[in-house]
Parts: sequence; structure tokens; C-alpha cells
Amino acid sequence: MNYRFSNKLANLAPSAIREILKATSDPSVISLAAGNPAPDAFPIEELRRHMADIMETEPITALQYGISEGYAPLRSAVADDLRERLHVGGEEDDVLIVSGATQGIALLTQALCNEGDVVLCEEPTFVGSLNAFRAFGAKPVGVPMEDDGISIEALRAACEAHPNAKILYLIPNFQNPTGITTSLEKRKAALALCREYGLVLLEDNPYGDLRFAGEDIPAIKTMDTDGTVLYCGSFSKVLAPGIRVGYLCGNRALLAKLTVGKQTQDVHTNGLAQMAAYRFLTGGNYHAHLKSLPEIYRRKYRVMRDAIEAYFPKAAKTTEPEGGLFVWCTLPDRVDSAAFCKEAAEHKVAVVPGAAFLSDPNGTSHAFRMNFSTPTDDAIREGCRILGALLHEKL
Amino acid sequence: MNYRFSNKLANLAPSAIREILKATSDPSVISLAAGNPAPDAFPIEELRRHMADIMETEPITALQYGISEGYAPLRSAVADDLRERLHVGGEEDDVLIVSGATQGIALLTQALCNEGDVVLCEEPTFVGSLNAFRAFGAKPVGVPMEDDGISIEALRAACEAHPNAKILYLIPNFQNPTGITTSLEKRKAALALCREYGLVLLEDNPYGDLRFAGEDIPAIKTMDTDGTVLYCGSFSKVLAPGIRVGYLCGNRALLAKLTVGKQTQDVHTNGLAQMAAYRFLTGGNYHAHLKSLPEIYRRKYRVMRDAIEAYFPKAAKTTEPEGGLFVWCTLPDRVDSAAFCKEAAEHKVAVVPGAAFLSDPNGTSHAFRMNFSTPTDDAIREGCRILGALLHEKL
Repeated sequence: MNYRFSNKLANLAPSAIREILKATSDPSVISLAAGNPAPDAFPIEELRRHMADIMETEPITALQYGISEGYAPLRSAVADDLRERLHVGGEEDDVLIVSGATQGIALLTQALCNEGDVVLCEEPTFVGSLNAFRAFGAKPVGVPMEDDGISIEALRAACEAHPNAKILYLIPNFQNPTGITTSLEKRKAALALCREYGLVLLEDNPYGDLRFAGEDIPAIKTMDTDGTVLYCGSFSKVLAPGIRVGYLCGNRALLAKLTVGKQTQDVHTNGLAQMAAYRFLTGGNYHAHLKSLPEIYRRKYRVMRDAIEAYFPKAAKTTEPEGGLFVWCTLPDRVDSAAFCKEAAEHKVAVVPGAAFLSDPNGTSHAFRMNFSTPTDDAIREGCRILGALLHEKL
Repeated sequence: MNYRFSNKLANLAPSAIREILKATSDPSVISLAAGNPAPDAFPIEELRRHMADIMETEPITALQYGISEGYAPLRSAVADDLRERLHVGGEEDDVLIVSGATQGIALLTQALCNEGDVVLCEEPTFVGSLNAFRAFGAKPVGVPMEDDGISIEALRAACEAHPNAKILYLIPNFQNPTGITTSLEKRKAALALCREYGLVLLEDNPYGDLRFAGEDIPAIKTMDTDGTVLYCGSFSKVLAPGIRVGYLCGNRALLAKLTVGKQTQDVHTNGLAQMAAYRFLTGGNYHAHLKSLPEIYRRKYRVMRDAIEAYFPKAAKTTEPEGGLFVWCTLPDRVDSAAFCKEAAEHKVAVVPGAAFLSDPNGTSHAFRMNFSTPTDDAIREGCRILGALLHEKL
């Protein structure tokens, strides 16, 4: 039959990254395109032990239906952890367990946006989030990034221009794709604008625990006094992404509405995964594990940084992230990164063209994203060598 | 702040059932309100063994990001099982793994429905599905149930009346909440109407393997020649609901669009759960396990049937399901079941008032739903005794 697709899905292409990842199943391709955490960082032994014990002592709890809000001990443990380590979460706040941070983003969009409503976001920003906004009927509108975060001047103009804007979406730490960290001043200014214009500020912080240089900057949620900020966190980078467990911390009334949405998306998050995450959080090794993560990422980043210095021409500008998974490389304006990335793929190196991260999917970008957490050290070096040789040809 | 909720979520109440379930955490309440499969039916030992082995031999596959379509060996195994056991799935069809059947329903609604588009469904029908339609902006329109399934005459009239109808939603086997099974004639007639009016027929079959009486009737999907039917199945009742693994079988082009939606809802389904489901399907005990299920449910149903015969007045009409989890009790027209269920709750017995299952959430129902799979035998008997005494007072 001829399917009559909805307007919001009809023209939505699959995530460029996930499509590239499928293509890179070719083992001869060096992939710097992923956004996967380093598997060396997965606490496999500990997870194995927790899961075995849960299936031995509480199998029915793990296997029967659970409530949509999430496994109660995990909700408490997450709330405690956020309060103690990050000073996130106040009297009016609550925690909702979600099936990965993307679900948190989808739930907020579903709860706030009618078809055509606007989500303001950094330009460029994470394609998975852009697609979640689009697939739930909202229109992402990009606001340019600067070296210290979103342009506040442009953000104010966007708030004025879009009275139907409902959400400001920010990734303040080691942003995907740029690696940029938003300054304290800009965090405060963005929050003030959201209050002024009645936007919910969605603070997405999947990489916050992966800082390997510089000093922590307080989460925007720590400055929230009236429920403007919804904080979104995830176990994908500190534990493992395959378990699909994340969480939201925000105003109780807002989360109650998102819980109704969650009932309609997947009823509840996998029980065993929630129980294992709870035991991981409270099992005694959590803080030591968190402390061990930056070293893994620092070392991988150093390999990429050294390879960039050795092989890339100076005209290719790269960001110097203080954490996270990504380096962003910007080419001169005359070079379209889509064509460059295609040529790189023909030379068996996959990186993600910058256009994937634009609010206008047909826009042009002169930049591309490189990941240093997933490939081996040798793959990083060889990939950068090949990219560097190509760049020298072009620039 | 004052949240400006979307039209689709602003007035959507939490699932009445899930709210009732939270209330029934009071251990003195006998709950016949759940829709949980019998925990006796969970293959705990086998799952424990599979999970332990996966975490020993393939932990990175289980813990790293996976592709949105689902774990490839599980997709193949599900396709094989559907083809061999149910003759479901043809040349043009594919399988998409989802995080429970509710996600499958959400994905189809997201892919096909603009705000205000109509989903035709049996009246009454499963509240979780009704809420999924609503939360994704669609308007459910109920078509009356008869003893052998949806009224075909009323369905044709609804198709005529609603040119913006995109989906017909049916639960042909042991429907939730009525327990009714749709006849072969009505399956054919419903499919013919969907073809005529260009609707996708969403065939939701969570209970198909729980038949304890009568003869199997072919799935509607077996009669599909042009991709009109999307078949939705789940491991929740044959394995365990807490793992949140279900699947869709339908036309490749349709599923490709739903996969884009899934990327925006939860990226992919929990890896370990998919791998465990795969080993369960192919591990050698699957067919024996399937054969063992009906006996558990037959016995539980018999306990409820005997208690109904012993305690209920004749004026309370109950359905006699040939499988599944539910009995539907219809009272005389002068009795509003909402008030009756409230009174029953005061007498410490929880059942679900019929209005929860109506397409108009403010409608009136004279019926209520009783579950026999979750409570103990004694709880079924005592619950029916108390309900019967109340019914004798009213009727």
C-alpha cells in the first residue's frame, strides 16, 4: 500500500551518524565517526556480579512490570548522588528514570511542543537530539556557538523572533559535536533569558563526568530556583550505553507530565538494568570508578591531539576539549566538509560531516567531528595521518 | 514557572490502571486490577543462565551501543519463529525490535498521524494503547465490540465518517479488556475495509500464545498481501515483561520509517535483554515453554470462573475467554461501574472500571475488568466473593 506518513516523520532521514556506523561495519574502515564510550571504561566485572546476584535473589522484581517513574531505590540513589556531587536538585524537584537520555529529550518535547513549536539549540548540536525534536513535531532553530558557548546576543534575538519557542536545549559540558564547554557567565545569562521568555532550559549533561582538564563549572540546574531547568543525565558514559538507563531531575509537576508520556513510550525502563545501576551507584566502587574515567579519556585525547599536531595542516582548526569524546575540526570557508568526508570515506576513514549537526538539514558546513574514545590508539593515529594527507592536498 | 504543556499531553491523565496499581501497594487490598503475566510462568532459571553466559562471553556486545533495528540474530530468530509457527511475514516484510509492544504502537502513531488524525479501535480497548494514540497527537475513535469482535457495519461507517483515519487498531485474540476473540470472518472483513480505505491495520497480539481453550484462528497478518497489516508481538507474556522486548513484523518500507522514529525515542532496546531473548528463542526449550503456558492460565481462569459461578448474581454478565488474562463483567444499564468499582475498593478489592477503556475518557461504562493471572488462587476466590456480595446488594 502507499503509506501516508505524518508530516513530522515523512522527510526525516535516519541519523547520519547511525547510518555511517552501519557503513563502517566494513572492518577495513577506520571509524572516527562513533560517539561510543570507551569499552575499557565499562565496569564489566562489577555489572556481571550485580546482575547475577539480582537474578538470584530478586528475579521477580527484575522481570515483572515496574512503575513508569522507575525503580524507587534507583530514583533515591540518583537524587542523592546529584545532590551530593553536583548540588543538583531542590525541594520541588524529583527524579524520573528514562531509557537513555534521548528518551528524556523526547519526553520533554512531547510534553511541551505542539506541531511547529520551536526548540532553540546550539548550532551545531547533537543530531540525535535534533531528530528527537523533529520527530515529535517541533522545529529546531539553531543559535550560533562561540568558543565559550552559545551566543547570548543571538539567543535573545531568537527568543524575540520565536514566541512559540518552548525549550532551550544546551549541552554545557564538552558539547557534542564541538567539544566546547559553556562558561559560567553564559550559563547564567542563558538561564536568565529562559526565565524572561518562559522557556524550559533542557540541560543535557551526558559527558560531565568525563572532564580530563580544567575546572568543573556548576551545572545550570544548581542556579535554578523556579523549575525552569530540566537536568538530563545518563549512565551511558559512566556505566554502559547498552543498558539504556538515564534520568531526569526537575520540577515534580513537570516530571509528572513526562511520566504520563513515558507510559505511552515504553511503559517503564528495563528492570534488571535499573536494579544493576542502583547497585553500581551504591555498591562502594562508584566514586573510585568515576575517578578512573578521566584518565582513560585524557590518554585517548592525547593520542588524537598528538596525531593532529603531527599530521594536520595549520589551516584546519581543531577545538581543544577539556573532556568528553569529540574534537571538532573546522576547514576554511571554501571547503564543503560533506565532499571532504566523502573523500575521506573513500580513503577508508569515517568522520561525521558537520551538516549532520545543523538545525537546517540542508545547510552547508565547513567542519567535521572526530571521536577519540572508541577507536584504538593505532586507529586514531592512522586515521589522522590519512585525514592529514587529504587536508594537505585540499588546503 | 508555569509550564505551557502541549495540547496532546495537557489533558492526558495517567493510565487509570497504573494509578490503581500504585494504590494497590497496600497489602490489605486484593488486586484483580493488574494485567501482569503470572510470575510462575517466567523461565527464571533459563534467563539467569543465558544472562550469565552473555555477560561472561559477549559483555561488550551487550553493553555497547547497538543498532536501532535491533540485535540482528534476534531479528532473524523472531522472523523465523513468526513464519514457522504463525505463517506471519512475507517477502516484503521485515522485523523491528521494540522496547515492549507499547513502543510499537507509539512508533506507528508517530510515523502516520498528524495532530488530530484518527485511530479507529475496538470499544472498549486497552487504555495503554488509547493513551499512546493520544500522547502522539492522534484521536482514538471507538467502534463497538460484539461477541465475535468489532462491529463491521459500524467500522465501515467510521471509515466513511473519518477520512483522516490512518490506523485500525485491533487485539484479535483474548482482547484487553473484554477477553473476546475476533472471528475469522471479521478478521477478513476488517482487513478488506482497511484496504478499501487506505488504513494500516495494527494487529496487536500480546496474548496469542496464552490460548487455553478453543482453536487457533489465523493472524490477520497471514492474509496480508500488500503491507496493510503491521503485526505487533511481545515477549512480555511468554518470557517476562520487565525485560521490555517486543517486535513488529511488517512491510520493509514502513518499518524503515518506524526505525527513524525509534532512534528518537530510545535509540535502541536494552542489549542484554535482546540477547537473552534470542538465546531463549533458539535455546531448545522455547517450544516446550510455550506449550506449558496455557495450563498455568487455564488453571487460574478456572479458579475465577468457579468463583464467579459461586458468588456472582446472574444479572452480572461475564465473558468466557479462550485465553489471555482477563474477564469482563457487564452490569445492568442502570449501574455505573465507576461508582461500583469505587465501592469495591472501599471493600479492599481492586478492579478496573470500564470507562478507562473508552475512547471518550469521560464516557460512562457499565462494565469492569478482572484479571486472573496475577492474584493467588485464594485472592481470586476471596476477591470474587466480596465482589459477588456487593453485586447482590446492587442488582
